[in-house]
Amino acid sequence: MTEPILVNGSWVPGDTDQTFVATDPQTGKGLGTYPVSSWDDVDAALQAGWDAYRSVASTDPSVFATFLNDYADRLDSRAVEICSLAHSETALPLNPRLLDVEIPRTTGQLRQAATAALGRAWIRPTINPTQKIASMLRPIPGVAVVFGPNNFPFAFNGVSGGDFAAAVASGHPVIAKANPGHPGTTKLLAEEALAAATDAGLPAAFVQMIYRTDHAVGAKLVSDRRVAATAYTGSQNAGLALKAAADAVGKPIFLEMSSTNPLVVLPGAWRERGEELATEIAESMLMGVGQFCTSPGIILAAVEEGSDAFAKAIASKLDAASAGTLLDQRVQTGLSAAYQAWSAAGAKKVTESNAKGPGCSFPNTLMRVSAAAFVENHTPLQLEAFGNMGLLVEVPDIASLHACIDVLGGSLTGSIYSAADGADDDTYDAIVEVISERVGRLLNDKTPTGVAVLSAMNHGGPYPATGHPGFTAVGIPASIERFGMLQCFDNVRPARLPDELKPDNPLGLMRFVDQTWTANRVSWG
Amino acid sequence: MTEPILVNGSWVPGDTDQTFVATDPQTGKGLGTYPVSSWDDVDAALQAGWDAYRSVASTDPSVFATFLNDYADRLDSRAVEICSLAHSETALPLNPRLLDVEIPRTTGQLRQAATAALGRAWIRPTINPTQKIASMLRPIPGVAVVFGPNNFPFAFNGVSGGDFAAAVASGHPVIAKANPGHPGTTKLLAEEALAAATDAGLPAAFVQMIYRTDHAVGAKLVSDRRVAATAYTGSQNAGLALKAAADAVGKPIFLEMSSTNPLVVLPGAWRERGEELATEIAESMLMGVGQFCTSPGIILAAVEEGSDAFAKAIASKLDAASAGTLLDQRVQTGLSAAYQAWSAAGAKKVTESNAKGPGCSFPNTLMRVSAAAFVENHTPLQLEAFGNMGLLVEVPDIASLHACIDVLGGSLTGSIYSAADGADDDTYDAIVEVISERVGRLLNDKTPTGVAVLSAMNHGGPYPATGHPGFTAVGIPASIERFGMLQCFDNVRPARLPDELKPDNPLGLMRFVDQTWTANRVSWG
Repeated sequence: MTEPILVNGSWVPGDTDQTFVATDPQTGKGLGTYPVSSWDDVDAALQAGWDAYRSVASTDPSVFATFLNDYADRLDSRAVEICSLAHSETALPLNPRLLDVEIPRTTGQLRQAATAALGRAWIRPTINPTQKIASMLRPIPGVAVVFGPNNFPFAFNGVSGGDFAAAVASGHPVIAKANPGHPGTTKLLAEEALAAATDAGLPAAFVQMIYRTDHAVGAKLVSDRRVAATAYTGSQNAGLALKAAADAVGKPIFLEMSSTNPLVVLPGAWRERGEELATEIAESMLMGVGQFCTSPGIILAAVEEGSDAFAKAIASKLDAASAGTLLDQRVQTGLSAAYQAWSAAGAKKVTESNAKGPGCSFPNTLMRVSAAAFVENHTPLQLEAFGNMGLLVEVPDIASLHACIDVLGGSLTGSIYSAADGADDDTYDAIVEVISERVGRLLNDKTPTGVAVLSAMNHGGPYPATGHPGFTAVGIPASIERFGMLQCFDNVRPARLPDELKPDNPLGLMRFVDQTWTANRVSWG
Repeated sequence: MTEPILVNGSWVPGDTDQTFVATDPQTGKGLGTYPVSSWDDVDAALQAGWDAYRSVASTDPSVFATFLNDYADRLDSRAVEICSLAHSETALPLNPRLLDVEIPRTTGQLRQAATAALGRAWIRPTINPTQKIASMLRPIPGVAVVFGPNNFPFAFNGVSGGDFAAAVASGHPVIAKANPGHPGTTKLLAEEALAAATDAGLPAAFVQMIYRTDHAVGAKLVSDRRVAATAYTGSQNAGLALKAAADAVGKPIFLEMSSTNPLVVLPGAWRERGEELATEIAESMLMGVGQFCTSPGIILAAVEEGSDAFAKAIASKLDAASAGTLLDQRVQTGLSAAYQAWSAAGAKKVTESNAKGPGCSFPNTLMRVSAAAFVENHTPLQLEAFGNMGLLVEVPDIASLHACIDVLGGSLTGSIYSAADGADDDTYDAIVEVISERVGRLLNDKTPTGVAVLSAMNHGGPYPATGHPGFTAVGIPASIERFGMLQCFDNVRPARLPDELKPDNPLGLMRFVDQTWTANRVSWG
């Protein structure tokens, strides 16, 4: 029996013969059969979503806030059931992770988005009162499409994650594309989203959900005229194919696709606290079995020539930890491919354990390579190894460090560890500018795997980590602004202005008036 | 003798055999021979521009401000010579226009950008002090490329216009692509830009300029790894080709490409002040011989069935005005092509004069079409007629008006004229939402041809008016933000933070701290 999709408020069978089976990565056991949606299903969702957009276009943001808060409450109430299924589908542990970390993070995001919707934190109201010109961000017309990744079944899920929350906060109905790695979890989430939307009086098609499409249907979806914008988190290959389709017709698409997250250890830091750093780095590498977008994949370590102390220190931590179960077989296959590519490019394995966990698994692996080889073969050596494998680049001197940094591609994060006593400061100053150019978030003395949901967070970065370096997928209100179009009101009669821009500022908002932020009312004309 | 290009601080002959001749559109007289740059020339400019970026990456913004202000002063000083040549190259009048309107607008923009650079108005500093996370916009690394259009020889010129000013204010060297319609003017501007850059102590390659490339070289330019971002104003065909090239490699590109600027006249407005409106609309249509991005190209007028009073009223104004000289032969050819396409789609000419101006010219033309025909043939009838020709769509009732608005494509502007006494208010309310979705700037009772350089201005709009509805080419600081990448600093030691983000706020900036705008210092950690 094939599971239904959620279209226009109803759980309906997909109009398709194609299906896929969800599996437990620990046991290989089947967990249900799901449809691969046809264009007809997608087209129906698009039309219902467009009609829903039209019907909510003048809705007070308090309705979206009510929906988001109620949905968050519902997820908290059903957390145990949802986490239990998510654990089966992803092998991610209940504690610490799904129940005590990812659910609170997800509901916290939804509630932050509710607050931002209510407070209009994302609209950037800008006014030149003398000239009677005012502007703000308003929703790009249409339905938002959100593709969720495999590695965060709630916090980045198309129907509950940060992109979903941002799309709703900006007033958009959403078509969620579940990740096929956790379709059952996504179905449970969508049930709660639908119930919350219904309770909030939102249209039936405010939240819709499909599980999977083929590439052609996916491309047609993101380039459809009824779409406002698409947010995507996932693999680079699929992301670039969607980007090409959306770009060709001028449809905004925001992608978070890949990242090697270079981490630099300067010599003074190694001397001061080498063992401690090795532990910290190894723990970061293994967080979520390495299946984090911000997992440190390339460690550039200033080591004395000929010394393998740092490699051994990290490797011993990895060898001592048990290998976890991966999200699915594709992750395991990807790690094997990266291992082959890195080996062919001159990297050697340092870890000694070949132990695997139950089901889909790969031994915790550290490889090492010389700085010279890294520079020479930087393309294959920067192939993202999504999972519990990392590459240590052993850098004998500062000139080599510069050469390595010069070949780095775009990443979400870059970390620099330096001595507390200032011994590395000159080197830090010499490298920080070029590192900064390649990453969206620069860290000091900290691993990149924590992505706090804060206004100053950037979960973005230069291509190909994302599609555009100006945007972030995490951090409110910036993540919401992605779904906005800039609209200017020129000589529009004051009573006709949106409340956000009215001269007497009825909502009491902070507004950018003649180049100054103020909550004061303004004189018109 | 072929004019030189400006590469790395020197005026050098282009490494090319291909040339083009600039001509006076009034007389057809040749005004100089200019090179079509080869890839080798462009490559040299890119490398010098990249090196210049690297050398200014830590420069204090006051240096860019000094450059912009000094450059503005220089343009004021040399205005008569520059305007004289621009008049020869474009046939745009000296007064009112080049000397008394466009030069002050251009120097005003440069000075506004200088103020924004100094005050960091564009960087959006955002801080979560407790968590030691802060972010801001910083220049996307690389050289900015700016393509100028034919219709504003200064205010949108690649080497002096709003995009240029925005790119410099954000800390970027610029490679300007002159418009081949006014290469000599652009050379004079570039001379002053170079002198100002030299005086400011900026690198020799801070401002570079080429005149023209073929399509393949242009595509290679905007997709080059050394480019930060491209800003383009010009035709849709060329713009879309550049967009495809830049998109394919994830290079940001901001385009302003085309617009029909629908203008709606509701029945009460016509009754109240029909003659006055006809004059206002005709004047707006003829401003710059209709060669404005925001020229009202499609007038949707609620008229009584069978009445041609409104058509006649506008036509009589157009017939009474002399036809101006167009920018070049291509504009004339474009108008003829649009005339043919509109005719084939059912539009009929209303104006009676066939008089042309000196040189490249086209009679002032109004065509009319029924609402039903417009809806049926909306694609050819929305072909942009860039120049002194417009289309009046006669709309007999509100249902027809809705149908017409529903088929409108994306435009920079949309205007609605309604009765002062409130007679049209219900109709206004019924149509404003859908009009708003299609335009970047909504006007009331005002023609769209004035684009004030103000913080709330939006010179942008839905595709295909631009490439992305979230951005504006005019209006500071928003136009500057386009050249920024978001960068987050996570646990970075306070002394290493940019001054803009330091806890004690040494620059006294307004900053977004824990969701509130404040200039207060913050406690770290």
